[in-house]
Amino acid sequence: MKPSQLFQTALTPDDLHTFFHEVRQTSERLGEPLSDADATVQSMPDASPAKWHLAHTTWFFEAMVLKPYVPSYEPFDEDFNFLFNSYYETLGARQPRPRRGMITRPALSQILDYRKHVDDALDSLLRTGSDRRIAELVELGCHHEQQHQELLLTDLLHLFAQNPLHPAYRDPGPVDVETADLPPLSFTEFDGAIVEVGHGSVGFAYDSEGPRHRALVEPFRLANRLVTNAEWADFIDDGGYKKSLLWLSEGWAKVQAEGWSEPLYWEERFGQNWTTTLRGFQPLDPAAPVTHISYFEADAFATWSGKRLPTEIEWETAAQGIAIQGNFLDTHRLRPKPASPHLGGLQQMFGDVWEWTRSAFSPYPRFRAVEGAVGEYNGKFMSGQFVLRGGSCVTPPGHIRASYRNFFPGHARWQFSGLRLAEDA
Amino acid sequence: MKPSQLFQTALTPDDLHTFFHEVRQTSERLGEPLSDADATVQSMPDASPAKWHLAHTTWFFEAMVLKPYVPSYEPFDEDFNFLFNSYYETLGARQPRPRRGMITRPALSQILDYRKHVDDALDSLLRTGSDRRIAELVELGCHHEQQHQELLLTDLLHLFAQNPLHPAYRDPGPVDVETADLPPLSFTEFDGAIVEVGHGSVGFAYDSEGPRHRALVEPFRLANRLVTNAEWADFIDDGGYKKSLLWLSEGWAKVQAEGWSEPLYWEERFGQNWTTTLRGFQPLDPAAPVTHISYFEADAFATWSGKRLPTEIEWETAAQGIAIQGNFLDTHRLRPKPASPHLGGLQQMFGDVWEWTRSAFSPYPRFRAVEGAVGEYNGKFMSGQFVLRGGSCVTPPGHIRASYRNFFPGHARWQFSGLRLAEDA
Amino acid sequence: MKPSQLFQTALTPDDLHTFFHEVRQTSERLGEPLSDADATVQSMPDASPAKWHLAHTTWFFEAMVLKPYVPSYEPFDEDFNFLFNSYYETLGARQPRPRRGMITRPALSQILDYRKHVDDALDSLLRTGSDRRIAELVELGCHHEQQHQELLLTDLLHLFAQNPLHPAYRDPGPVDVETADLPPLSFTEFDGAIVEVGHGSVGFAYDSEGPRHRALVEPFRLANRLVTNAEWADFIDDGGYKKSLLWLSEGWAKVQAEGWSEPLYWEERFGQNWTTTLRGFQPLDPAAPVTHISYFEADAFATWSGKRLPTEIEWETAAQGIAIQGNFLDTHRLRPKPASPHLGGLQQMFGDVWEWTRSAFSPYPRFRAVEGAVGEYNGKFMSGQFVLRGGSCVTPPGHIRASYRNFFPGHARWQFSGLRLAEDA
Amino acid sequence: MKPSQLFQTALTPDDLHTFFHEVRQTSERLGEPLSDADATVQSMPDASPAKWHLAHTTWFFEAMVLKPYVPSYEPFDEDFNFLFNSYYETLGARQPRPRRGMITRPALSQILDYRKHVDDALDSLLRTGSDRRIAELVELGCHHEQQHQELLLTDLLHLFAQNPLHPAYRDPGPVDVETADLPPLSFTEFDGAIVEVGHGSVGFAYDSEGPRHRALVEPFRLANRLVTNAEWADFIDDGGYKKSLLWLSEGWAKVQAEGWSEPLYWEERFGQNWTTTLRGFQPLDPAAPVTHISYFEADAFATWSGKRLPTEIEWETAAQGIAIQGNFLDTHRLRPKPASPHLGGLQQMFGDVWEWTRSAFSPYPRFRAVEGAVGEYNGKFMSGQFVLRGGSCVTPPGHIRASYRNFFPGHARWQFSGLRLAEDA
Ligand SMILES: [Fe+3]
Ligand SMILES: [Fe+3]
Ligand SMILES: [Fe+3]
Ligand SMILES: [Fe+3]
Repeated sequence: MKPSQLFQTALTPDDLHTFFHEVRQTSERLGEPLSDADATVQSMPDASPAKWHLAHTTWFFEAMVLKPYVPSYEPFDEDFNFLFNSYYETLGARQPRPRRGMITRPALSQILDYRKHVDDALDSLLRTGSDRRIAELVELGCHHEQQHQELLLTDLLHLFAQNPLHPAYRDPGPVDVETADLPPLSFTEFDGAIVEVGHGSVGFAYDSEGPRHRALVEPFRLANRLVTNAEWADFIDDGGYKKSLLWLSEGWAKVQAEGWSEPLYWEERFGQNWTTTLRGFQPLDPAAPVTHISYFEADAFATWSGKRLPTEIEWETAAQGIAIQGNFLDTHRLRPKPASPHLGGLQQMFGDVWEWTRSAFSPYPRFRAVEGAVGEYNGKFMSGQFVLRGGSCVTPPGHIRASYRNFFPGHARWQFSGLRLAEDA
Repeated sequence: MKPSQLFQTALTPDDLHTFFHEVRQTSERLGEPLSDADATVQSMPDASPAKWHLAHTTWFFEAMVLKPYVPSYEPFDEDFNFLFNSYYETLGARQPRPRRGMITRPALSQILDYRKHVDDALDSLLRTGSDRRIAELVELGCHHEQQHQELLLTDLLHLFAQNPLHPAYRDPGPVDVETADLPPLSFTEFDGAIVEVGHGSVGFAYDSEGPRHRALVEPFRLANRLVTNAEWADFIDDGGYKKSLLWLSEGWAKVQAEGWSEPLYWEERFGQNWTTTLRGFQPLDPAAPVTHISYFEADAFATWSGKRLPTEIEWETAAQGIAIQGNFLDTHRLRPKPASPHLGGLQQMFGDVWEWTRSAFSPYPRFRAVEGAVGEYNGKFMSGQFVLRGGSCVTPPGHIRASYRNFFPGHARWQFSGLRLAEDA
Repeated sequence: MKPSQLFQTALTPDDLHTFFHEVRQTSERLGEPLSDADATVQSMPDASPAKWHLAHTTWFFEAMVLKPYVPSYEPFDEDFNFLFNSYYETLGARQPRPRRGMITRPALSQILDYRKHVDDALDSLLRTGSDRRIAELVELGCHHEQQHQELLLTDLLHLFAQNPLHPAYRDPGPVDVETADLPPLSFTEFDGAIVEVGHGSVGFAYDSEGPRHRALVEPFRLANRLVTNAEWADFIDDGGYKKSLLWLSEGWAKVQAEGWSEPLYWEERFGQNWTTTLRGFQPLDPAAPVTHISYFEADAFATWSGKRLPTEIEWETAAQGIAIQGNFLDTHRLRPKPASPHLGGLQQMFGDVWEWTRSAFSPYPRFRAVEGAVGEYNGKFMSGQFVLRGGSCVTPPGHIRASYRNFFPGHARWQFSGLRLAEDA
Repeated sequence: MKPSQLFQTALTPDDLHTFFHEVRQTSERLGEPLSDADATVQSMPDASPAKWHLAHTTWFFEAMVLKPYVPSYEPFDEDFNFLFNSYYETLGARQPRPRRGMITRPALSQILDYRKHVDDALDSLLRTGSDRRIAELVELGCHHEQQHQELLLTDLLHLFAQNPLHPAYRDPGPVDVETADLPPLSFTEFDGAIVEVGHGSVGFAYDSEGPRHRALVEPFRLANRLVTNAEWADFIDDGGYKKSLLWLSEGWAKVQAEGWSEPLYWEERFGQNWTTTLRGFQPLDPAAPVTHISYFEADAFATWSGKRLPTEIEWETAAQGIAIQGNFLDTHRLRPKPASPHLGGLQQMFGDVWEWTRSAFSPYPRFRAVEGAVGEYNGKFMSGQFVLRGGSCVTPPGHIRASYRNFFPGHARWQFSGLRLAEDA
């Protein structure tokens, strides 16, 4: 029986081949500033070592494409299936997630050899093959790897933030602080309607983005820009982290248990707010979007503002007509950027920071996970998480869509996560 | 400024007065079989002592009605505000939840005196007063107390299940096992439609049940009855608790960490499944609805069945036309009851066991918590929980509605929670 | 084969019979002020419910004497072996220690019935029997019960201290505060010598108190009295809980993890130090011995004082010539008492508070645990504990000896534990 | 005031200079087989990264000698005081122990630069200086570094054992398995006596090894050799890990909580016992001494054997007349070695594995910690630990003495720890 189509590709075989090589090279470029040690250590159970990301994305192609579809393929090292499987129960036992940082060997250089071995095999396959399923899996593998590119950077930032020396990943030094004024906060109104959301068109999307379906939206308003560091400092100054009534019960428990009093990575130094960034320890830019906040903090801020977070359907409705441009990984800024005072309408919808929505990550109507290992991709995480939308300053360009559903638990803070306010109209 | 209306009551002052006394007497009757020790011990942080339930529901009237609205009221004991406040930040500091079981004094008899003291004050107030706000708060307090009546019993069952002697709360001995056949599983189909859900009519409802609003529902089918113990045993026999692919990731982690291999309270004895019930340690009734399962188990069972759980909107759509009758607290059965082979249509929608839905507990469109302590009632729990519908065999009759939204974390098992299957049409 | 002698008794059969009844009655009198709830709740894993103490000491006679030696004995309830075995692996499975507080039934009244059932059987046995082994085991059971009498009170104090109302066990109200001056701190010098320590004479002793053996002691000096609350307050005022250099590494870790800043149960109220006692919440008596301190605190205080704690051999050497008199359970004071300004020599060696020594609880030379369940009594606790000497204000009179070795982990604080200073001579 | 003498050195200034360079070079040679990643990762809170050991031993010289005594010394990097202080409260704040593995930068190469910087400064100092205190501190620093050499290897073994690939530190492959027979177990008898123990002569010793003092020893017998892997396998086969009566209570709790069923690093493979060694994953040598066992296991084995562990005084009494020769780090075997069938008397007293004694780590009579940072070296660890004697196969030669007192908590297993049996005579 032919496996069902994963998605309707928009790529020719040549495009796919090019895409594959670009993605693979990007990962390796991301690894260049890292020492073997930088690439090996795991800073917390939720984060993974850079070396693991580089190997796991390679393993994905090996396990999903080469082993099942290329009979002549010789695995680089049979042990790597155990070391670099993330969570696919279908594909065998694996190194426990919290112990990924114990793998000092293979070294980073061997992982790069492993990457080359798999690249060569895929290169041959892509040159000759024209099987639809293989093409789908390779394209999925590329998007999978792009996802891990972002995680590699966020996990590395977390690691460097644990080091009292706060080393910089790249280009230490402040980014230019924008001197121009911010646009004042304003709200764009959207009518109530039966809308269509979810991915339904040509081009790659994850299974959880579909099926495309109708949804009923009540009239709402969405803020023109993201909440800034300066606005967050007002929230802190007004006792935001001390007023239990602003918080969800789960969030307030976290505030107390973890002693939260500001976003992750903030630190007062020389009477000013500084923060650990991928460019090292730097002064906060008041005009830039706040980031590294949990859902609970985003929700408390919205309550304090007399507003609320948007639902993911509202966000997607607003995003559907907007060009996918913004401050992504390819700007090399590696930090969120202030909104422009010269632009009207909704700004920063894509890039800068992921935007928390008030929507729990649930299956869309008629969603069914596909058969086999690929089906473990998203569906099994549909409990206990909230949806984030729009990508961030470390999202690879081309990886984001209006329908893209990222998800993290409500307490997660180490991603580039921020917020945009909404309200009922 | 006049406080906004909490809900639109359907009760005359006399009805309310009667309701108040009935509720208060029911609580005390529930406490009758208990010793001072039974009523004092806390079996886990999520459960509360019976004595605490009896006092806290009394405190609710004192803190919400008597202290703010009856200037001449003399509190029974000023320390009780600390001891019996549950989670109302607005109303002051309180005994930490996990340490509610340390309060061996006041004794149960003093709590009964406290109840009488507050009852007398409220009786006078209800006799004379006609203030709308007071009436609303008293009616809210009665529903609040009914909710705690159910919790008192589920918490007590948990306590007795920790005792290796498995004492019975009442009437030890098996309930009559139904000898007649079960109705075969069948599904009722519902058309796609724009439906109206949520409480919007006359009569009490909690804030989270509203506002009444439109929702878009795709065609679906709902099972005629609840899943039974016999069906659950088939799931176990087929390796249900051992097949990771059936489970949500969070659920599978729980299965492994907690060693789940059957519903809570099941125990093999004499080559047969037994279970701890409020009537003591008894053989399982294969035809009765399975209960004491988590959301994760319900979801895994549905996946194993090739079905899914209903959304709360689907469930409510189906429930709206059905009479609110069933196996509630007043049958004194204290256990779920098999479906009848003689009835068509949807059975067991109300009573027997709470039905897990796949819906996260989220605010309805345009929901806003009311001002003040009353506003802490539900809104702050809108993260990390799933909605259950329909009430159980220990829900007081009159306490349940088609729009009623109960909620618990996905791992909770000590409630009378079960499931009904659904599927896309 | 005849079992080896446990100890060389000093009691005639009649004496033993009398001793048995006195001990049993004392326990019941200790339980009189308690409600069923007071007697049931467990306040922490290290503490046990009063009901459990009353039942376990009864079970000890049943399991060690009646079941093995009285063929016609009919157990009161076969389930009690599971419920009330403490830690005897030889005697079967048991309720896990941290869950002793779940046993709301049997009620306290049933435990009293159980006690009567066993008392009657033992009464008959003691009237007729003259078997040496039985007599030894009964005498052991009486001393075992006396040990639990002290634990019953210390565990109850811990429970009442968790209750924000601080109920009194008995006689609420302050004890008379001594107005006379304390004797100044002075030291009695002891020569270096080869001494004999350990129990070796006629009369009951636990196995761990022997064999009597020689030990080499270097010259030392021992303080004339216990360290007082006033002296402890000086230690606090001098930053004792903040100076890491005063502390053992394990102790400093506890200070930081638990936030220790004063002895257990101390609380500042109305600008003064108060403390929870068995007579309720009371002002501290500055002249009374400090109590409810851990080994780590005692050691830090001694270091701060430029002194040290005595070894257990030094303590026993000093105690051997001193009459066993003091503030024990029978004074009904229930709190430690200030030293007398009118007495010379070593005061407070027996009673008031257990005195921490710097000796780890280790086997004496040639110690061997006896065969069978009785052998589990002490030997298996010989790691991770420190020895305390001299008894306390809740030790039953007659239960203490110069050779008596009590032991607790270095972090334990809920016993009546204090300290006496020593130094090298 | 002149600081008191730490010990009475046996080294001329030239000897010390030579010793210093030898020790420093040895550490660097130990680090040679390691990648930057190997040297950075921390496998558990009790273990430290190799890089940290290399830096911390260097910091010790900087903080104890160069900063206080060489005014012109310029620190290599002021941040290193925070990074590489271990536990000296006197010397300022430090990186928390469980987070030593977060320090991916400075890289291993920078640590080697740091070592050179400090070596150069000390070299100049040693060339010119003749101050007694400085010489003492340098000699102490060398012994300190030797201690860390052993820890570097045991910590590394623990790290490599977490890697499912079990990499070898050096020379992968089995050591020659001795084919000759073991000497049968026999016991050497020692008379009771007043002995002298503790360091009191010329030459370096740690503070805790003194003062030399008299002790009373009863007659005892000590086994001629260490317990072997084959004997340990018999213990396992006889149910040693399943018989609670063999175990100390603390030990039995660990067996159950951790699932201990064999020594650390043992693993059944191909129907045989294998183990992770510094030379990779290798078959166990049945004749070699068992190692990587906790105190609790050693004690249980001794009980099972009808013997006991020696006290540290007994061990030292026996060791005093024995030449300090054996299987140390300089044999490069890196594993314990079987006893020789051709030798009489006590074998393996030095080297191979540290021998657990039944003695808690306590201060010797008249022990007082010295003033200042040096005084934090040992004294503050005198609770909760047991003494081990004799050194191991990774102890640097020259680092061990008959009076040397190593100490670890009773549950520690990752050191080269084994046992020798003793009994009363
Ligand atoms: Fe992945
Ligand atoms: Fe409540
Ligand atoms: Fe006992
Ligand atoms: Fe060190």
